Formats: sequence, C-alpha cells, structure tokens
Amino acid sequence: MKADIGLIGLAVMGENLVMNMESKGFTVAVFNRTISKVTSFIEGRAKGKNIIGTYSLKELAESLEKPRRIMMMVKAGEAVDELINSLIPFLEPGDILIDGGNSHFSDTVRRTKYLEEKGFLYIGVGVSGGEEGALKGPSMMPGGSPAAWPHVKEIFQAICAKVEDGSPCCDWVGENGAGHFVKMVHNGIEYGDMQLICEAYQFMRDGLFMTDDEMQAVFKDWNKTELDSYLIEITGDILGYKDMDGSPIVEKILDTAGQKGTGKWTGIAALDEGVPLTLIGEAVFARCLSAMKAERIEAAKKFPKGDTHIAGDRAELTEALRKALYASKIISYAQGYTLMASAAKAYGWKLNYGGIALMWRGGCIIRSVFLGKIKEAYDKNPGLDNLLLDGYFGATVKSLVPAWRNIVAEAALHGIPMPAFSSALAYFDGYTTERLPANLLQAQRDYFGAHTYERIDAPRGQFFHTNWTGHGGNTSASTYNA
Amino acid sequence: MKADIGLIGLAVMGENLVMNMESKGFTVAVFNRTISKVTSFIEGRAKGKNIIGTYSLKELAESLEKPRRIMMMVKAGEAVDELINSLIPFLEPGDILIDGGNSHFSDTVRRTKYLEEKGFLYIGVGVSGGEEGALKGPSMMPGGSPAAWPHVKEIFQAICAKVEDGSPCCDWVGENGAGHFVKMVHNGIEYGDMQLICEAYQFMRDGLFMTDDEMQAVFKDWNKTELDSYLIEITGDILGYKDMDGSPIVEKILDTAGQKGTGKWTGIAALDEGVPLTLIGEAVFARCLSAMKAERIEAAKKFPKGDTHIAGDRAELTEALRKALYASKIISYAQGYTLMASAAKAYGWKLNYGGIALMWRGGCIIRSVFLGKIKEAYDKNPGLDNLLLDGYFGATVKSLVPAWRNIVAEAALHGIPMPAFSSALAYFDGYTTERLPANLLQAQRDYFGAHTYERIDAPRGQFFHTNWTGHGGNTSASTYNA
Repeated sequence: MKADIGLIGLAVMGENLVMNMESKGFTVAVFNRTISKVTSFIEGRAKGKNIIGTYSLKELAESLEKPRRIMMMVKAGEAVDELINSLIPFLEPGDILIDGGNSHFSDTVRRTKYLEEKGFLYIGVGVSGGEEGALKGPSMMPGGSPAAWPHVKEIFQAICAKVEDGSPCCDWVGENGAGHFVKMVHNGIEYGDMQLICEAYQFMRDGLFMTDDEMQAVFKDWNKTELDSYLIEITGDILGYKDMDGSPIVEKILDTAGQKGTGKWTGIAALDEGVPLTLIGEAVFARCLSAMKAERIEAAKKFPKGDTHIAGDRAELTEALRKALYASKIISYAQGYTLMASAAKAYGWKLNYGGIALMWRGGCIIRSVFLGKIKEAYDKNPGLDNLLLDGYFGATVKSLVPAWRNIVAEAALHGIPMPAFSSALAYFDGYTTERLPANLLQAQRDYFGAHTYERIDAPRGQFFHTNWTGHGGNTSASTYNA
Repeated sequence: MKADIGLIGLAVMGENLVMNMESKGFTVAVFNRTISKVTSFIEGRAKGKNIIGTYSLKELAESLEKPRRIMMMVKAGEAVDELINSLIPFLEPGDILIDGGNSHFSDTVRRTKYLEEKGFLYIGVGVSGGEEGALKGPSMMPGGSPAAWPHVKEIFQAICAKVEDGSPCCDWVGENGAGHFVKMVHNGIEYGDMQLICEAYQFMRDGLFMTDDEMQAVFKDWNKTELDSYLIEITGDILGYKDMDGSPIVEKILDTAGQKGTGKWTGIAALDEGVPLTLIGEAVFARCLSAMKAERIEAAKKFPKGDTHIAGDRAELTEALRKALYASKIISYAQGYTLMASAAKAYGWKLNYGGIALMWRGGCIIRSVFLGKIKEAYDKNPGLDNLLLDGYFGATVKSLVPAWRNIVAEAALHGIPMPAFSSALAYFDGYTTERLPANLLQAQRDYFGAHTYERIDAPRGQFFHTNWTGHGGNTSASTYNA
C-alpha cells in the first residue's frame, strides 16, 4: 500500500503531525536524517499504525501515491534548501513539497519560484499551536503554488483545529510566501498579546498592590468578557500555580525573556513596508529590555521608584485596566492587519482577511473569541482599511477610550512601564488626528536639505521649496536623503 | 602636477566636497560618468582652481599622487560595486578607495574585505551636513582599513567641521563598516530629534492653543538652554517664516513625511542586535503614520477629538514641556549609544564613544551643545553601559522626571499623540525597574511551548520546566520557537 503523504523530520512537532494525520485515516510514510529515529518511532509510538518507516529519500519517494506530497519538518534555513535539493532527483512533475517549519517568507517566495520552474509544486505552511497543537489540531496557514492546494486541502483541513461550528482553522492563504508571512504576523501579534498581559499584571502588582491570588481571580473574570482567549486563560492558571512551599511559582521565575524569533521579523517587515506597527515593535523591544537584568538592577538602585501605589477604588481601576487592555489589543490587531494588507499589495497576494481570522480562531496561541469579531468585520467589508473604521470596533473603542487614557496616564505618573499600552494609545491618537505635526518636519527637511514639500492649498504631487535662510540657492536636494 | 585626491560623481554633494578640499589647499582630480558634467564644472565653479578635469577612469588614476586616494560620491547600492570593479584595473597595491555615500554598513563590511583581499585599502565614510555642510565643513565618520587612515586624515580633518576650540568633527571610527554604522545611527537619532520637536510643537499648538509666533519665541528661548542645537534653532526660524499673505508658511505645508531612509535601517539594526531602540522606532513609524493622510482624515471624522485644551499656567506647562523634551532626548541618545556598543561587540569594532560625540558636535544636523556633555561622560568612563548611569545625566534626568511624567500624562488624557515622549518614559521606567513582568511571560512560554525558565533562587543557566496543566509530558520544546 502506498502512503498518502510523506513527512521528513521526526522531532516532536513532526512526530505529532504524523500521529495526527494517521488518526484521521491517512497513511503516512516517514523519514529522518538520523535513521535510528525512524526505527525508534516505528517501534514506539507508531507501532500498529498506518505509518511506514523509510530509510532513504528514494525509499520515501517510492512509498508515496502520486502526485507525491512530502512535508518537511526540519530546522528553518539552509537545512530546507539542502533537503529540497536532495529530494529533487526523486520527484516527478506535479509532485508537491511542503515546508511546515518557521521559514522566513522571503525564503518561501524564492523556493516556490525555484521549484515551479522545475515543474514541481511548493507549499510553505505556517503551523501554530506548539507540540500539543501539532498532535490535536494546529492552526495552519498554507501558501505557495495554488495548484497544490486541492491536493493537500483534505489532509490539512482534517488535521487542523476546528472552531465551535466545525469550520477548519486552515484555508488557502495565497501565493508563494503568503502563508509564512501570515504566520509571521501571527507570531508578532502573539508577542503583542503577551506583552499587554504582562503590563496589566505589572500594573496590578506594582500599582494596585494585588496578590497573585487576587490577580488570578481578575484574569478568570476577564476570561468571561470580550477578552476570552487562550492567553488570558493560561495567565490565570499560571498565577494560581503554587511552588512546593505554597507560594506562587511565577514570582520565583527570572524576569528575562528571549526574542530571537519571528517577532523581530515582523518588526523588520513593518519597517520595510513603512507600516506603523508600534505595539509589536514595543513588545519585541520590551523583551530585549527584560534581558538587560544586571543593568536594570544597577539602574533601579540609582533611580529608586517613588510611590507606585495608585489611589482609587480597586475594582474600578481593575475594570478600567481591562478596558485599556482590550482597546490596546484592538490596536495591535489593527496594526497587524494593516501590515498584511501592505505586504499583499507589495507581493501580489489576494489575502482573505476574514479567513485569516478564522485560521487564528482555534489551535494557536492567540486563539480567542475576539478573532470571531474580526472575521465578521472583514466578511462585512473585505476592503476594510483599518479595524478602527469598522462599525463594531469603532463603537467599542470609543466606549473604551476614557478608561484607556486614565490607565496610561496613571502608569506614566507612577513610574509603571507600559510601553505597549501607551504606544497603542499614541497610535490611536495619531491615527485619529487629521493634522499631525509632519508639516513642521517637512519644513525642517526642506530647510536643511532642500527636500521640498507639498502644500495643503496645492494639488498633491506639486512640490515647493522655501529659501528659509534668505541665502543659498533654490536647488532641491539631490543626493542627501536623511 | 599630480592631484592629492580624486573624486568621482559631480552631483551637488560631490562638487561641494571638491570645492571644500580645493579651498583647503588640496589639488583635486575629478571625474563623472556623464562627461559633459566634468566640462561644465571645470569651466564653471572650478575655473581657475586647482581642480583637474579627467575624462576616463584611466586618466583619473594617472593624474593622482600615490598611494592613490579616490573618493566615490555616487548613489549607494550597485552603482558603488560597479564603480569599484571598473576602477580596480587602474589601481596599484596600497591605493585607497573611499565611499562617501550613504551606503549600508553591511555593504561596507563586504567591500572592505573584497578590496583588502586584492591588496587595496578601503574607507566607508559617513558624511553629514547636507550640501551646505559638504561645502563649508561636514561631520565625517570614516571607517574601513585602518592602514588607510594616516593617508586621508590630513585631508578629512582639514575639510570637516570644527567645534569652538578648533577640534575637527572627524576622527577614525573603526574597522570596515564602523563609519557607515555610526552615520546610520546618527541619522536615526536625527529622526528621533525631529520627532521630539514635532511632538512638542503639537502639544503647544493643540494643547496650549499657542500661535506660531508664540511657539517661535519658545523655541528661541529653549535654544538658550541645554537644548541649544541646530534643529531647535531652525525650528524657531521656520515658525517665524511668513508666507506671502503674512501667515506662517509652516501651517500651509502638508503633514505627510517620507521615511525610506536610514532611520528604517537603524530600527532594523536594533531589532537584529536585540537592543531596545524604542524612541527612534516610534519616530520612524510616526512618519509612516503621517503618510496615511487620507485614512487619518476619515478616522478623524469618525473619532472626533474631545477638548484637547490643557488647563494650567501656560509658562509652567511650557517649561515642563521643555524638561520632558530634554529627558526624552537623553533617552534617545542613550538608546543610540547602546546600539553602537552592541554592534561594536558583534562586529569587533573598538569604538571611541567620546570621539563619536565630538564628530556629531558640529557640521551635521544633530549638532548641539548637548553632545559636548555626552563626550564628557564617555571621556570620563569609556565603558559606560548607558548614559543614564553617568553622574551628570543621572542627576539631570532625576530633576526632569516629575515634569516629564506630567506632560506624558496630560497628552494621554487629552488625545495629543506623543509616541516618542511616551515611549521614552516607558523605556526609562522599564530600565529602572528591577523586576519587570517577563517572569510571567516566561511562564506563559513554558506553559504553551515548554520553553523552560530560569529562577531567581537558582544560578543563571539552570533551566526549569513546570507541568502547568498536570497533563502532558515534561519534555521541553525542540522545534517551536515563538
């Protein structure tokens, strides 16, 4: 019997995807560079299942139905290129290679072109949900050769997460690197969501002097509101988890975080696209700052905090904090969606924005009820420029604004760092300001570099220069670009 | 007679550098790809000067003293590589190529290696100050082959800007791409300085209802304080400049700014280095947001501003604003210097931080009295981790903090976008916080991805995992890296 799909790379993610596929009725052929891993898998978890162990790429290729579907679960980077080149001799036109790793979208753009030119098909699929997701149903974001989708749709939609009504958290995203791009933005949004929760925790801990048990109760309550989400839920669990001595274990954990991942890529993509992605940017930088622990200890001694206690009714402040968190979260997703729209234009992808919200609705770390509302907004208006311009989100944010302003102001006054909350508010205030101060900035650039400017009383595209100093020429700048 | 130096690329920057060199007693040979430009220059501005027109790269090379010094003032990117390859046949070992354009530092790293391997020397020099600076004395930041420096030092230090005591705003920065890296950070800081001034202007205009004449007076006053700088000075000039109808011309300028430059590179470098460069990041994104003019008009209609007027004594608020601006500016430079220190470690450069402040002290757009204080701080302690840890800046920031907090809070409460001010304050508050909430973040990562964490009661480098849910294994994550 031939296998429905092949999978290369039997680390935990790969193994779990294989178990998941097999449990849905598919026969899977597996291969791993270190051959002993194949043996131990076949004799272990895979025993008695429709899983075929193979011991060379040739054997793997021969064991597959045609067109072949081969999923690679190997380390992102050169290992993928090497594996692709090793596989090519065993492929026939129409065969499909699938990269399920955390590849940078630009690599997937390049590889799609490379394989299509040789007559093969290629898919780069973002897989989110960690190891448990891989086993029980991940969120999956596939992009690449459109002709490949009909051949993998059944498998992908069988193994992926489902929302309440049974809709699969996997659909075609778009051409070449679109799937990996959307996965990257997903990860950036995950950075943002986590940072927002952390700032809310710090506000309660340092500003409201709340205990972990009290904060646990708050997160449990919040999980019954619009904030209902996996990350809010696990935060409640974490705050309630006691160490062996009965004290909250979270307070024993070192406050330094890593960040060498896709959050950084998202920030770079935003800078490349010229899209203001301020909240995720601050979230990535907040992790960098947390890593500077030794310096922070020294700085904390030199700049002792004043009284961080925020006066007022604790229940009211906590509710205001919830509103501020929700408003900031809306901004984060608004920014992330703007980034996807800009990239779609730049790379020629036709993205289905409602579909993306649905893919994130289950299986992945950022899964939430909130994403259902985003789906509704984009289903209603697929050309929506910004979530804030949607009726529901517009009205919601309006109702949250007063509380949001108060929380950001209190944090600023009391020395509680809330870079993501305050950056979100500054974005909102900038986005809703008809007249920003960039007129002065353009005047400065024209003053020192003769960069020219446009005027509000002249058509766009008509450029003016002022001889600000009264001396020098009227030439505009040629080589100086600041 | 042979020329002391050759220059290729007779756009305004190149021409002005030639005129500057000649005025200091050097003989300059010039070449331009479009030959007619050589003729018109020689017959025009260069007439009667010690400037030799040449009409081929061969002729240029033959006209130069040895070792040859050839400065390229052409468009950054492939044009530089092409020109280098065209020049190589006419070079002898020990000859020096100099790139004075806005090249990305990684290109300069690559080119230095390429030319050194062939026996030549290479310099990438950041030149700041625009066209006027090029003519009258720019700030110059050279890096590349150390052996080249003694051969160009005399020329560079003759033509560059000087500070009051005559010290040149040009010194050796470091190996390969160090000069262009420092120039890039300079430009990022320029983005930050400009954004801070713009936010202060918006605060006065929209929060204090001040006229342009009143704001002009404020900037003139500020220029007599620690804020004394070129950008504050020209901002005063700009606000006072009247259009033909007698009204301030700055209010007629369209509020959309460009940003396809080196500010973006600086943000990307910070993300790559893992250095929190939040203020410059916000400044770059603020330009992006300003460019979304049509959307902002729509959003402003949907979210009408409330009362933006800030009650209180106007003089007191203006002084508080000045203090907040100064504090934020200190943060921006602290962040920029941290980025340079991190890159120096990564690329093996020995940077002279006090020397860099001196190079920026005159000639360039960010020139200011303030940079003299930075020079003092690094001269006192070349290993300073952060400007905030310097005695002078520490005491200064402490004195500014209360006003800074009030301004950021008032802006948040009244809907005036101040992303750079508030991001700077959040950084300060985070940097001076011994216990950030990254402990919760690490718990979340361990919960959903088994990423493990360190503990405050265990040595660094020892990693723990908690089985948060009570089910699942104790394995830590292998392939999932969010």
